[in-house]
Amino acid sequence: PAGIGTEITLTAWQSSHDTCTPYFLIDDFNRVEKVRNDLNIDTPLCVIETPSESVEVFNDSLPVLSRLRSGETVFGQPNTQTALSVISSIETAVQLTLAGEASGVVTNPIQKSILYKAGFEFPGHTEFLGALGGGDSCPVMMLACEGLRVVPISVHVGLRQALDELSIDLIAKQSRVTWQALRRDFSIDNPKLAIAGLNPHAGEDGAMGLEESDIILPAIEVLRAEGLDVSGPYPPDTLFTERTRTRYDAAICMYHDQALIPIKTLDFDGGVNITLGLPFIRTSPDHGTALEIAGKGEASPRSLLSALRIAGEMAECRARSSE
Amino acid sequence: PAGIGTEITLTAWQSSHDTCTPYFLIDDFNRVEKVRNDLNIDTPLCVIETPSESVEVFNDSLPVLSRLRSGETVFGQPNTQTALSVISSIETAVQLTLAGEASGVVTNPIQKSILYKAGFEFPGHTEFLGALGGGDSCPVMMLACEGLRVVPISVHVGLRQALDELSIDLIAKQSRVTWQALRRDFSIDNPKLAIAGLNPHAGEDGAMGLEESDIILPAIEVLRAEGLDVSGPYPPDTLFTERTRTRYDAAICMYHDQALIPIKTLDFDGGVNITLGLPFIRTSPDHGTALEIAGKGEASPRSLLSALRIAGEMAECRARSSE
Repeated sequence: PAGIGTEITLTAWQSSHDTCTPYFLIDDFNRVEKVRNDLNIDTPLCVIETPSESVEVFNDSLPVLSRLRSGETVFGQPNTQTALSVISSIETAVQLTLAGEASGVVTNPIQKSILYKAGFEFPGHTEFLGALGGGDSCPVMMLACEGLRVVPISVHVGLRQALDELSIDLIAKQSRVTWQALRRDFSIDNPKLAIAGLNPHAGEDGAMGLEESDIILPAIEVLRAEGLDVSGPYPPDTLFTERTRTRYDAAICMYHDQALIPIKTLDFDGGVNITLGLPFIRTSPDHGTALEIAGKGEASPRSLLSALRIAGEMAECRARSSE
Repeated sequence: PAGIGTEITLTAWQSSHDTCTPYFLIDDFNRVEKVRNDLNIDTPLCVIETPSESVEVFNDSLPVLSRLRSGETVFGQPNTQTALSVISSIETAVQLTLAGEASGVVTNPIQKSILYKAGFEFPGHTEFLGALGGGDSCPVMMLACEGLRVVPISVHVGLRQALDELSIDLIAKQSRVTWQALRRDFSIDNPKLAIAGLNPHAGEDGAMGLEESDIILPAIEVLRAEGLDVSGPYPPDTLFTERTRTRYDAAICMYHDQALIPIKTLDFDGGVNITLGLPFIRTSPDHGTALEIAGKGEASPRSLLSALRIAGEMAECRARSSE
């Protein structure tokens, strides 16, 4: 609430209410209304009691499911009281989606540091959603922008630890989750996965590192034996060029920045974070709370708009695939 | 000679002879003429005896300084005989430049594997040029495309070894060479250097790795104490976004792919490799020999054209700075 989440939700509605799959906001109605008035954002609001009501009103106003009081918030200053309302609204979103009342969850950025102070015990949003998803969850982070999807094998660990944890099993597991999600939620019948190398030039036949021959190539062989269309390991620096990125549906990357550098370099505002491997659809804008510009009306809703659009498209694909 | 070098040199002349600082080709004239005829490239050639002759003829024909016989070459099939002519022409180029007969060296890509078989003993082009440059050389690789310059701290080593070798001294040394070159060869009075972090989110205050606090930050302090305008460590994934890259003159990167992924993702064909820290100017296209398309007329001369243009600009800056 102290970040840019509310204002980008308000401005996003303006350019999506007549084109996007209907969505609703889970928040404290009074707080949202105050932000709208303080920032002079011309977005009509409407309180709803149940998710299904949003379909009818969505074209004319932003539906708000208001089950909680988040208390006073000051832009740029997160506090532990509102932190509890953040956790609670994520839980509500997941419950409604698992119950079939909504078809997916789109989360605004959270301020992890303040959630930790309020007792939150997960390394990040994604792990929390994995726990809410129950036993079958195997959350895998995918980032997408126009023309490129990337999946980092590891996320919030240091680079040295990421190298230590790299294994045949981990690459195979993440690739399988990605492959299944591309089929079910993106309607790609036979997804092509490109597996990145770890070292410069993908190790150049062992001259610059052995992870390609010892770990990555064996993982590719495991996946191929299961019938997946998997290729690599590719030199990381040329895997994301304009020409190369048309040749696969997702690139499996060996560490966080190998995946995030190309996405954010290509399209900082438009990238979307998609969690695969959950029992529900979940997308999120690919940026943080941006406390330093919150409340100033400068924040771009582009990434949130992409997250909302992609969640809607994924929901349609998933509905078709389960018919 | 078995790669795309000759054909891109011939086609590059066509779109640069009336705008670029004059240059000449060091090669076997007969071989170049045969490639031109076989590939139907409409570029007039002219034999020169000394570099200075090229100024007068450059606008009408590509000057060729022909001091060697490279023997028969077959596209796509490098051989050890021609390898010796490759080494010899690099040596000639450096000698002429050190003697003041030319103002810089632009090298076409070499096929290292075949040079090794012919007795070449350097890990790469850059190290060879460093040796030719003599005792004061401290070769540092910079890559540049429109709007972005990056310097990887390590080049041709595996990622794990790059982490092991990362040190305060290495970061400081490479940054100093970059800073001096930006002043002398790019006429930037007070260059701004952005130092990348190593870990995701630049370690997030030690939560994901300690290299930022133990190595990178101390290196920044050393450089600042010397009066350099150096900042960081920055989260690697947002250091190359459209907005961020306008804020510095060069990004100092902690490993090969951290630097090369953004450059090649942004501009695969137009990137240029610039070796700083040599007693002479040296640029190179940022691609390999491309044996698989050699002789087919498909190769783009864009990177070579940028390399030629930048070498000319650097030579002018250096001449001004030594006036």
